[in-house]
Amino acid sequence: MIKAGIIGSTGYAGQELVRLLINHKSAEIKWFGSKSYINKNFSDVYQNFFKIISDKCLDDNMEKLAEEVDVIFTATPQGFCSSLINEEILSKAKVIDLSADFRIKDVDVYEEWYELKHKSPQFLKSSAYGLCEINRELIKNSNLVANPGCYPTCTVLSVYPLLKEGLIDENSIIVDAKSGASGTGRSAKTDNLFCEINENIKAYGVTNHRHTPEIEEQMSYAAGKTVKINFTPHLIPMNRGILTTIYASLKNEQTYEEISSVYDKYYSGERFIRILDKDVLPQTRWVKGSNFTDINFKIDSRTNRIIIIAAIDNLIKGAAGQAVQNMNIMFKIEETTGLMQVPVFP
Amino acid sequence: MIKAGIIGSTGYAGQELVRLLINHKSAEIKWFGSKSYINKNFSDVYQNFFKIISDKCLDDNMEKLAEEVDVIFTATPQGFCSSLINEEILSKAKVIDLSADFRIKDVDVYEEWYELKHKSPQFLKSSAYGLCEINRELIKNSNLVANPGCYPTCTVLSVYPLLKEGLIDENSIIVDAKSGASGTGRSAKTDNLFCEINENIKAYGVTNHRHTPEIEEQMSYAAGKTVKINFTPHLIPMNRGILTTIYASLKNEQTYEEISSVYDKYYSGERFIRILDKDVLPQTRWVKGSNFTDINFKIDSRTNRIIIIAAIDNLIKGAAGQAVQNMNIMFKIEETTGLMQVPVFP
Amino acid sequence: MIKAGIIGSTGYAGQELVRLLINHKSAEIKWFGSKSYINKNFSDVYQNFFKIISDKCLDDNMEKLAEEVDVIFTATPQGFCSSLINEEILSKAKVIDLSADFRIKDVDVYEEWYELKHKSPQFLKSSAYGLCEINRELIKNSNLVANPGCYPTCTVLSVYPLLKEGLIDENSIIVDAKSGASGTGRSAKTDNLFCEINENIKAYGVTNHRHTPEIEEQMSYAAGKTVKINFTPHLIPMNRGILTTIYASLKNEQTYEEISSVYDKYYSGERFIRILDKDVLPQTRWVKGSNFTDINFKIDSRTNRIIIIAAIDNLIKGAAGQAVQNMNIMFKIEETTGLMQVPVFP
Amino acid sequence: MIKAGIIGSTGYAGQELVRLLINHKSAEIKWFGSKSYINKNFSDVYQNFFKIISDKCLDDNMEKLAEEVDVIFTATPQGFCSSLINEEILSKAKVIDLSADFRIKDVDVYEEWYELKHKSPQFLKSSAYGLCEINRELIKNSNLVANPGCYPTCTVLSVYPLLKEGLIDENSIIVDAKSGASGTGRSAKTDNLFCEINENIKAYGVTNHRHTPEIEEQMSYAAGKTVKINFTPHLIPMNRGILTTIYASLKNEQTYEEISSVYDKYYSGERFIRILDKDVLPQTRWVKGSNFTDINFKIDSRTNRIIIIAAIDNLIKGAAGQAVQNMNIMFKIEETTGLMQVPVFP
Repeated sequence: MIKAGIIGSTGYAGQELVRLLINHKSAEIKWFGSKSYINKNFSDVYQNFFKIISDKCLDDNMEKLAEEVDVIFTATPQGFCSSLINEEILSKAKVIDLSADFRIKDVDVYEEWYELKHKSPQFLKSSAYGLCEINRELIKNSNLVANPGCYPTCTVLSVYPLLKEGLIDENSIIVDAKSGASGTGRSAKTDNLFCEINENIKAYGVTNHRHTPEIEEQMSYAAGKTVKINFTPHLIPMNRGILTTIYASLKNEQTYEEISSVYDKYYSGERFIRILDKDVLPQTRWVKGSNFTDINFKIDSRTNRIIIIAAIDNLIKGAAGQAVQNMNIMFKIEETTGLMQVPVFP
Repeated sequence: MIKAGIIGSTGYAGQELVRLLINHKSAEIKWFGSKSYINKNFSDVYQNFFKIISDKCLDDNMEKLAEEVDVIFTATPQGFCSSLINEEILSKAKVIDLSADFRIKDVDVYEEWYELKHKSPQFLKSSAYGLCEINRELIKNSNLVANPGCYPTCTVLSVYPLLKEGLIDENSIIVDAKSGASGTGRSAKTDNLFCEINENIKAYGVTNHRHTPEIEEQMSYAAGKTVKINFTPHLIPMNRGILTTIYASLKNEQTYEEISSVYDKYYSGERFIRILDKDVLPQTRWVKGSNFTDINFKIDSRTNRIIIIAAIDNLIKGAAGQAVQNMNIMFKIEETTGLMQVPVFP
Repeated sequence: MIKAGIIGSTGYAGQELVRLLINHKSAEIKWFGSKSYINKNFSDVYQNFFKIISDKCLDDNMEKLAEEVDVIFTATPQGFCSSLINEEILSKAKVIDLSADFRIKDVDVYEEWYELKHKSPQFLKSSAYGLCEINRELIKNSNLVANPGCYPTCTVLSVYPLLKEGLIDENSIIVDAKSGASGTGRSAKTDNLFCEINENIKAYGVTNHRHTPEIEEQMSYAAGKTVKINFTPHLIPMNRGILTTIYASLKNEQTYEEISSVYDKYYSGERFIRILDKDVLPQTRWVKGSNFTDINFKIDSRTNRIIIIAAIDNLIKGAAGQAVQNMNIMFKIEETTGLMQVPVFP
Repeated sequence: MIKAGIIGSTGYAGQELVRLLINHKSAEIKWFGSKSYINKNFSDVYQNFFKIISDKCLDDNMEKLAEEVDVIFTATPQGFCSSLINEEILSKAKVIDLSADFRIKDVDVYEEWYELKHKSPQFLKSSAYGLCEINRELIKNSNLVANPGCYPTCTVLSVYPLLKEGLIDENSIIVDAKSGASGTGRSAKTDNLFCEINENIKAYGVTNHRHTPEIEEQMSYAAGKTVKINFTPHLIPMNRGILTTIYASLKNEQTYEEISSVYDKYYSGERFIRILDKDVLPQTRWVKGSNFTDINFKIDSRTNRIIIIAAIDNLIKGAAGQAVQNMNIMFKIEETTGLMQVPVFP
């Protein structure tokens, strides 16, 4: 059994990680960390776990935790993991960080967009960017994995094959993303009250959302050259799910079949990526509650653009599910373990 | 023109009052009070008013306000109005208090349920309980009106005729109420976040909600004897609206027509009460955005109970709309002025 | 492996049954019946199953199905199962009927409330009412199980101990229920469009909902005398979940501890019933996606009534989950098999 | 008083038109046309109008209607208005068509995208495209006005000044739009059921939505050259509102102030267009229930693109409100008459 500890287990992503791990046949949770709820029953904070989990919340002691577990998940705000991590911790336990601290290799870019001094840049090089389908080998050999952001996961997975094959103009990419409200987290803010989000849609972080450089870095690796994009997230009145609508100019005319075969080349063996049938477009309802990424595209011959649409459950493939998938890879167990939930509808 | 001042203009009920008053042909707002947003543009707090209202928010100075306006609305937490009001204020301006301070005539009951010392019990006697359709004459002659609670408005209006006529067993009344989330107010609490209210229903305040004694007092007046009820409010995932489902035992067998004629006797001349056609039951969508109270009932001959269902928009008839209706009555202008909005659907 | 066939697999309850069964370690689905979608891929009707199920929908041939499977689930409108079932089918396969056909033992009551002639009253006697926690032994020995209605499940489970112990006045029971929209089914009706249900609450079936006699019959068995109730369901804007708020007069004064110990007596060993801690009330969000029934109560000493609140996921404990639980009991495998999903929040 | 008749008064846009007109001080409705509900009380179809409208629904007799009213609104499917309209009707009454029949001047484009033979191409030339802020003079002098589509209204208004001034690359425009569900209409389709739309987002009509040529034609007029765009609408779980997020490349570098002054040049005198303050972005909640179009933009110096965001209430400025605005212009009364509703929040 893999012994797991979670720091930040009472955020939305943290509790989802708990839900996935307690039904994971090869893992068990040994530490429910939660700064805000120390000594409170975990199931008093999230009553869905009543009569399922009897543990109390513990503090954020990463050093002690490293003694007791095989893997530490940090589902914490940016700056937390990088300020506490050290060689000793990494010598004792593997770390999967769900925050942004180790996602961006260029420390200057991180510090500019996050307006934070990075406390452990020395680990950036050896850490792996945990986009499982792309970086499987790196992840396997790393003891520090940066779990990707929700928007970057959905975005990068869906354009990666096209960039890798050089089919789209790298300067033409526009990512218009829409997310459910669980992405805003569980902290009490007027803007996130029911009446403010319900019956509303808004864009936010326009031109300056922090997932922009993360997406650009990964796209640049795929393209083999610098990619700059526009990324615009929107908040919509639902709990879970991200839909990304991506626009790009095709370098040359392409048929549906040609593009389709490119996706097959990269993803036909992937259990968690579903390239939908022709003309069937991803919708968040069909991935909700699962680790799937649904992808499809349409070519507009009038403008020679391709429109790529992808959907994930932001708390699963966009956070906790991918974290478990990374754990499975790092511990060399079957990658799909604990992640074969069928999407829940309605 | 009636000069109006609002203390607490930036809560949900306060801003709704603003919306109603700025289209009221005989009133104008002179004071947008808001402790939390002093000196901030009102339209920065509620952007629906951008290019409509250019005023800044002011402080809560009730004495100064009384000099400048004809009517003061207090859309504030309990305890506020009763702690500031005095004879001098009341000699200069009429006061419509949207809080609970003057709703309950028995000061002991108020202090027990609200766990507050009442600061101005001397005004309880002369104040009027502003349930317009029932207390019109009292309201007309009062300069301090207690605007009823949202649940009491919907509840009392819908059973009043039956109690007045002595048709139902006073000890059998059960009120099961359901409200949209705007009733919880705009303060930032985890429990009121979108993800906590969406896709959920919960009961709250079971056996001890503070609207219970207010409902009981009004029902007791109608019945001419002490009435004790069970009142259970529920929070449901929508912005606006209250539906109350009320159960009571009929003292004797009654036909639909007999009960129907009783409602007609009391309400046939009321513009804001709609007794629906036989077998058509109230739904909140048909009153949303309006000052209407929709009411209907079914008799269950199997159990000899009557089930009375009523719907209001909690922010209008349940708060700001009724406050305007009270103002109209107090200033002896046409009661429907500024309140003839058609319900907005969908 | 238990071979299962589903007639009516493309309704909301049917597809939920599919979802539960494909992850059930001791069962496999052999027949995806759907009159409306014969020969269409099941995963084209419900795209959540894309790349998970490759079967096509088949017709409703119950006789043929009985040859091929061990258990037949009928998730069909009332009248269907009773018109096709016969001795031969029952000699070959066990049947779990999710419709109302075999829920009510008194055929006259069925025919009156459902306005249908019952085609197979001869099986009523030997069939079991599949409320697992109450009728486990009967279910074990039956080859025809009537899976309870969603409202009756939530209602009966939560008052059963009180009736059985004779603690509440049998003539005082009022059930006020609230359901998410998946209970209305997937047929295309104007009343069930998004814009009609969203931002609305309505009561329906007031005094004449068909679950009334089903609830009354089960309550009468528990009480050992005839029980007549008022039952009022409401439709609220969410996908899943039922909350029932039940009012009853206590025959004698009772303390919280006394009532609590009664619930413990009946349910302390039940895996799918959670009696919550004192003052913690059920909410649908904490059971969504699971087979749990959450129950708690408050005593109002002012009126000597008890208010019992219960929550289930209407598609799981209220339909497909309980059907699987019944299957597990009938086939004498561990009752919780395939049903240990943690509630999914948010 | 302007006598008005509505054909198609029981669709969502039709009933909204009714709501606006019955509070319009210079108009009265003489004909509630509704093919589906002939002889039924209008207020039985939309109970919000109970005790407000006592008229019955009438048939679709346009010739007879022209005798009785001054203005005919056709809130009907495409093909209806163009198949019935004739010189005689137009000689007796003004016509405002809310369908697409007269929006596109090029009959070939109409027939290609709508897959319909146009029955009255002879009126295309003299009809006016009723985008009030742009075509006021044309509308004033026309007796047949094509009320714009909801998406085109929001899109064209928000980019018009930039195209007119030649500031953006005409080939770079991408329109990503999001709409509430009232845009899908009131017909009973499985796809539009509550459970299918709630907790979901999907794109639809990708590369082939019928509003594309309408938007392109209007953009081309503004730019003085042919414009081809990508337009992708999405359906989100709310009742009302459209948000459009538009991406375009700036021909030259521009400052916020330069672009801002361009918007001022075109719209500073417009009552229904609100250019928001710097960094404040449109949200649908702030325009819901009103005739406003809220617009703002951000410039991304990294990519030299401008992102323009706009919000409308799809049933008001996107349909019924703009139709009333057109009527006001055609009848030379104050343009804002009956349209000064403050946005309703929450």
